[in-house]
Amino acid sequence: MTKVYLDHSAAAPLLPEVREAMMPYLGMDFGNPLSLHDWGDAPRDALEEARVQVAALIGAANPEEVIFTASGTESNNFAIKGLALAQQNKGKHIVISAIEHFSVMNSAKFMEKLGYEVSEVPVDKNGLVDPENVGKAIRPDTVLVSIMHANGEVGTIQPLAEISKITKEKKVVLHTDAVATCGAIPVSVKELGVDALSLAGNPFYGPKGSAALWVRRGVRILPLMDGGIQEGGRRAGTEDIAAIIGMGKAAQIAARDLVERGQKLTQIRDQLINGLPAKIPHVVVTGDLVKRLPGHASFCVEFIEGEAMLMMLNSQGVAVSSGSSCTSRALKASHVLLAMGYNHEIAQGSLLFTMGIQNKPEDIDHVLNVMPPIVERLREMSPVYSKFIKANKGGQ
Amino acid sequence: MTKVYLDHSAAAPLLPEVREAMMPYLGMDFGNPLSLHDWGDAPRDALEEARVQVAALIGAANPEEVIFTASGTESNNFAIKGLALAQQNKGKHIVISAIEHFSVMNSAKFMEKLGYEVSEVPVDKNGLVDPENVGKAIRPDTVLVSIMHANGEVGTIQPLAEISKITKEKKVVLHTDAVATCGAIPVSVKELGVDALSLAGNPFYGPKGSAALWVRRGVRILPLMDGGIQEGGRRAGTEDIAAIIGMGKAAQIAARDLVERGQKLTQIRDQLINGLPAKIPHVVVTGDLVKRLPGHASFCVEFIEGEAMLMMLNSQGVAVSSGSSCTSRALKASHVLLAMGYNHEIAQGSLLFTMGIQNKPEDIDHVLNVMPPIVERLREMSPVYSKFIKANKGGQ
Repeated sequence: MTKVYLDHSAAAPLLPEVREAMMPYLGMDFGNPLSLHDWGDAPRDALEEARVQVAALIGAANPEEVIFTASGTESNNFAIKGLALAQQNKGKHIVISAIEHFSVMNSAKFMEKLGYEVSEVPVDKNGLVDPENVGKAIRPDTVLVSIMHANGEVGTIQPLAEISKITKEKKVVLHTDAVATCGAIPVSVKELGVDALSLAGNPFYGPKGSAALWVRRGVRILPLMDGGIQEGGRRAGTEDIAAIIGMGKAAQIAARDLVERGQKLTQIRDQLINGLPAKIPHVVVTGDLVKRLPGHASFCVEFIEGEAMLMMLNSQGVAVSSGSSCTSRALKASHVLLAMGYNHEIAQGSLLFTMGIQNKPEDIDHVLNVMPPIVERLREMSPVYSKFIKANKGGQ
Repeated sequence: MTKVYLDHSAAAPLLPEVREAMMPYLGMDFGNPLSLHDWGDAPRDALEEARVQVAALIGAANPEEVIFTASGTESNNFAIKGLALAQQNKGKHIVISAIEHFSVMNSAKFMEKLGYEVSEVPVDKNGLVDPENVGKAIRPDTVLVSIMHANGEVGTIQPLAEISKITKEKKVVLHTDAVATCGAIPVSVKELGVDALSLAGNPFYGPKGSAALWVRRGVRILPLMDGGIQEGGRRAGTEDIAAIIGMGKAAQIAARDLVERGQKLTQIRDQLINGLPAKIPHVVVTGDLVKRLPGHASFCVEFIEGEAMLMMLNSQGVAVSSGSSCTSRALKASHVLLAMGYNHEIAQGSLLFTMGIQNKPEDIDHVLNVMPPIVERLREMSPVYSKFIKANKGGQ
């Protein structure tokens, strides 16, 4: 059977070069970078090389501003909790968007337990944050704004450079969750004007367990991991050198291939975004069509459920998601789609295709072939759909 | 040159079988365990198998009580912060010992910023906590006691089963940092009577980036990582499946080989503990001689500095530590040795040998050969030593 993997936002395969770069650190070079003897040398050098590679991917001037963590979720927890707590004497108000990843949303909710207040900035039908609304949400006691760079569920890229103009003017720290964009589109912390940025290695074919938080020099942050002196005292815990080296190598390759990858992925993305609604009636493309991640196609297929489609696509060898992988077993309508103004019924039909560099136009052809009969069969079983058909016939 | 690695508490090599078990998850089986399609199956099954393996190593009845994390430091942060915060309505007092790892100590210090109070239970000259002192430190508002199972710097194993009798009687949650003991000596959460236990994979030849916190069913804990639904909602973030599988495999092997490893390591440990003071005058063995980790030999060599010895041993191909690797670059006297009653001067001469399963008696012979001239040379350069010699001669 043809196998087509289109769920790269849930998990992406390691690049062979990345795996190769990691291997010595799963073998002979097992030492601790803090060790003063010879066994510490290779891991320490490799660690600092990876830091330079990751800094280069995001246009950071100072590699020491990169703090390695173990997941995008950790980076986001670290940012929200650490940046807010470091300024608790200044104020206890946090601003986020309504469509943040759960690691940002739930970290902000955690801060409410510590007496903080959280305001959510709304988004429009395309999932876009209006920078003016960020300005309006900022109060004198606001210490942190966190707006994601791009949303993993609907692919919309936010106007961060415009948002940062406002936060700079109002002297509020701006964090962005850039897990979906780093390695996918050009990211420059300088051009974005942010103060802190989360990224993870797996989205650009680095290992799971690799991630980082970049924090601009001079911006205060409290550790999430208290303990030893690793990462300049900002993130304790023995470094997972193999993962870090893998992330560094993947960052280096991503920086090199960024334009080429972007073009290729945009092409097959548009093949699907244009092809699916042309073949199947009552399909809505979610997210912005222009300000959109390459390799990201998301839809709501009306009258049926995303998970049912997912299972039937799986039986045809096609792997996709229905919303964020962090909630895919929760069977709830996505908070992202609801915030964009979709109703529960339509949001239930969410389907997310995330393409990778190994995908080819033929993979999309396969999806466009197998999807229509799947949707047709599911709609035949759908009471909502038969009601809709009857109503439409009745109206004739 | 003969190469002898005796710094296993800083970093241990991966077992080849462990690396082999990890490889599929760095290759074809890259999927996300939360994925509903076929790519999620292998990682999900492997994740749950690893959970069973880790639970078995610590005698936990319910594998789902095991929460995977990314480091022993994370497990300790999670335990201290999460267990204390979950009970904040009951009280805000935490009891720890004076010789905890920095990830426990500094997590407790962090809680002071949130209005908690922390009491430190003292230790005796051998680094032992007196259970009675734990009882005395517990107040009506105490919500958490955290006493490490064994200390990584001096090897002393605490009487946890006696301590847990007291915490149970006083109905206070007991956590233990068992990073140094799991896989090294038999550990049973049931026999120890603890409510939560931290462990890490690398000390028993699993990968870095693998660790876990075991929390007894029914004990409330707040997440350190807020976000998605992974690990039963208790620890968000995409699972580092390769690391977790490696930890599971290493746990399985450790459980199988525990007795044999323990005997072997105890033998070469005692070879060094007996041999070094016999060959070099003014050498003190630190920690308890009986209640002691296998493979763990720690000393204070008087009149000279640990780091100078470490560097000279390194030039002879021998890798050791001077105190905890998390602080080895801080050039401060160990808080552990100071708490045990050693003065700053003697504590500066700290030297730590941690043996692994690949070490042989010949490795210890090598150390016993190269150490005496190193110490002699350093003492020749030591003003403190010449003062001591003069004073002794003057006294004759």
